[in-house]
Amino acid sequence: MSEFTRFEQVTVLGTGVLGSQIIMQAAYHGKKVMAYDAVPAALENLDKRWAWIRQGYEADLGEGYDAARFDEAIARITPTSDLAEAVADADIVIEAVPESLDLKRDVWAKVGAAAPATTLFATNTSSLLPSSFADASGHPERFVALHYANRIWAQNTAEAMGTAKSSPEAVAGALQYAEETGMVPVHVRKEVPGYLLNSLLIPWLQAGSRLYMNGVANPADIDRTWRVATGNDAGPFQTYDVVGFNVAAHVSRNAGADWQIGFADLLQKSIDAGHSGLADGQGFYRYGPNGENLGPVEDWNLGDKDTPLG
Amino acid sequence: MSEFTRFEQVTVLGTGVLGSQIIMQAAYHGKKVMAYDAVPAALENLDKRWAWIRQGYEADLGEGYDAARFDEAIARITPTSDLAEAVADADIVIEAVPESLDLKRDVWAKVGAAAPATTLFATNTSSLLPSSFADASGHPERFVALHYANRIWAQNTAEAMGTAKSSPEAVAGALQYAEETGMVPVHVRKEVPGYLLNSLLIPWLQAGSRLYMNGVANPADIDRTWRVATGNDAGPFQTYDVVGFNVAAHVSRNAGADWQIGFADLLQKSIDAGHSGLADGQGFYRYGPNGENLGPVEDWNLGDKDTPLG
Repeated sequence: MSEFTRFEQVTVLGTGVLGSQIIMQAAYHGKKVMAYDAVPAALENLDKRWAWIRQGYEADLGEGYDAARFDEAIARITPTSDLAEAVADADIVIEAVPESLDLKRDVWAKVGAAAPATTLFATNTSSLLPSSFADASGHPERFVALHYANRIWAQNTAEAMGTAKSSPEAVAGALQYAEETGMVPVHVRKEVPGYLLNSLLIPWLQAGSRLYMNGVANPADIDRTWRVATGNDAGPFQTYDVVGFNVAAHVSRNAGADWQIGFADLLQKSIDAGHSGLADGQGFYRYGPNGENLGPVEDWNLGDKDTPLG
Repeated sequence: MSEFTRFEQVTVLGTGVLGSQIIMQAAYHGKKVMAYDAVPAALENLDKRWAWIRQGYEADLGEGYDAARFDEAIARITPTSDLAEAVADADIVIEAVPESLDLKRDVWAKVGAAAPATTLFATNTSSLLPSSFADASGHPERFVALHYANRIWAQNTAEAMGTAKSSPEAVAGALQYAEETGMVPVHVRKEVPGYLLNSLLIPWLQAGSRLYMNGVANPADIDRTWRVATGNDAGPFQTYDVVGFNVAAHVSRNAGADWQIGFADLLQKSIDAGHSGLADGQGFYRYGPNGENLGPVEDWNLGDKDTPLG
């Protein structure tokens, strides 16, 4: 089996919230990056993406941020809407297109046909099992998942996870690439839904929302207990605000128990009112212009109610 | 219903690890405390308890620690093995005897017979439902749970939780008492097993051990992912070390799935080898003399194994 040890030319498929971060993280660490998006308008918006990511680097990297280096990184990025051109010289292709199985299979079939035989294939899928579309590439042995968290420059884990068909060399290559691009590489040794992070996060978040939906305690009390008793920084409802209500509502609704659907309904009501979490300044808590927590939103308190719904 | 607003005379039943901390926390905040233990030898060991707790106050309270105040607190504590004497003048009785239902029912029957009609009754039970023995006191309307975490001066939540029979005044009294004794009062509005803290902690810890037992990742990788991606300080295996392997093995074995029993077996093997977590310097990690983390213990790594057991 061939090894994957040279990552000079990187191709990222998809220039959305996470795709654009994966592009910049690579370019900032010296890689030449082809930034592919099927939608030309998305490529025209890349300047706004860089401006937003630059703010994050400035705020979070401290001395690790260098304005000139960031400018040079932008110069190493080549936007394109031509998929075959995008992957023609790729050492690694990282796919971050929307979470649709049909779309992913279609994209990977095209990549598999157009990329060199030495290219490492990686998907950033969050909610799909990589084995459900690895074969579409025609090369499942050099296909792995490489999973990033939002704000990847700060919460900089990269979880490398193979499927049953991935070669050990492909997984090793993904771990090496993660390290070369400033990430903390994490080896997920078997394919599991949710990788490590979501496997830990979801049961914990659900334990919090379950207590709340059963009328056991207010969100701020649940968070305070976690913080004070474990010494951690953020309880489950603070974390819901970071994750964002759109993703949280989707996950909770799909989980399917009555209380979970009820929780999704409450989140949706808040989304409809313009409050979807930290990103727009209000979720379970209110936030100031720099994201500082201004305290819990009283509307979420149980008050005299036995449960949030009744 | 009578209110509970004056807490001058406190009685704590049981002078073990947590009972002794509840005693000192009350005395340090100016309360007169009767320290009851059925075992006279336990009372003779109280000086060692105070020395250990004093170290904790010194290390964790910063300017909140005052040696003279600690000495005065010790002077306000009256040890006794006479239960009727212990509760005769109590404004609040906090029970922290071993987690046996029969024992708790027996103790609370005696307290109920001997204590004044104005005394607030509180149990610190962790693993039993307070409603399973509240009636033994003869006064379930003034009986609540008040739950402390270990190292209560630092992880200073006090979760006040009534049963269906507790009066609102009794719960309010417990919250007030918590506040008066330097705790962060947390209102648990309905009786649930595990209060808030364990309701959050156990699913999260189990998610970690499940990943490990399935051979998905090494403990240190699971912890690192949690820390880096959520910004929290401690992952599940670091937390297992703090909780201690004895409690963790007990909980995991009782949970009953094959992988949970397998995990309990591994913890027991480590306990038998003298490594039960942070308290004795080694668990999933090694610790220095001041509890500093010296890194993961290699023996827990999966290496070439598909699961920890095979």
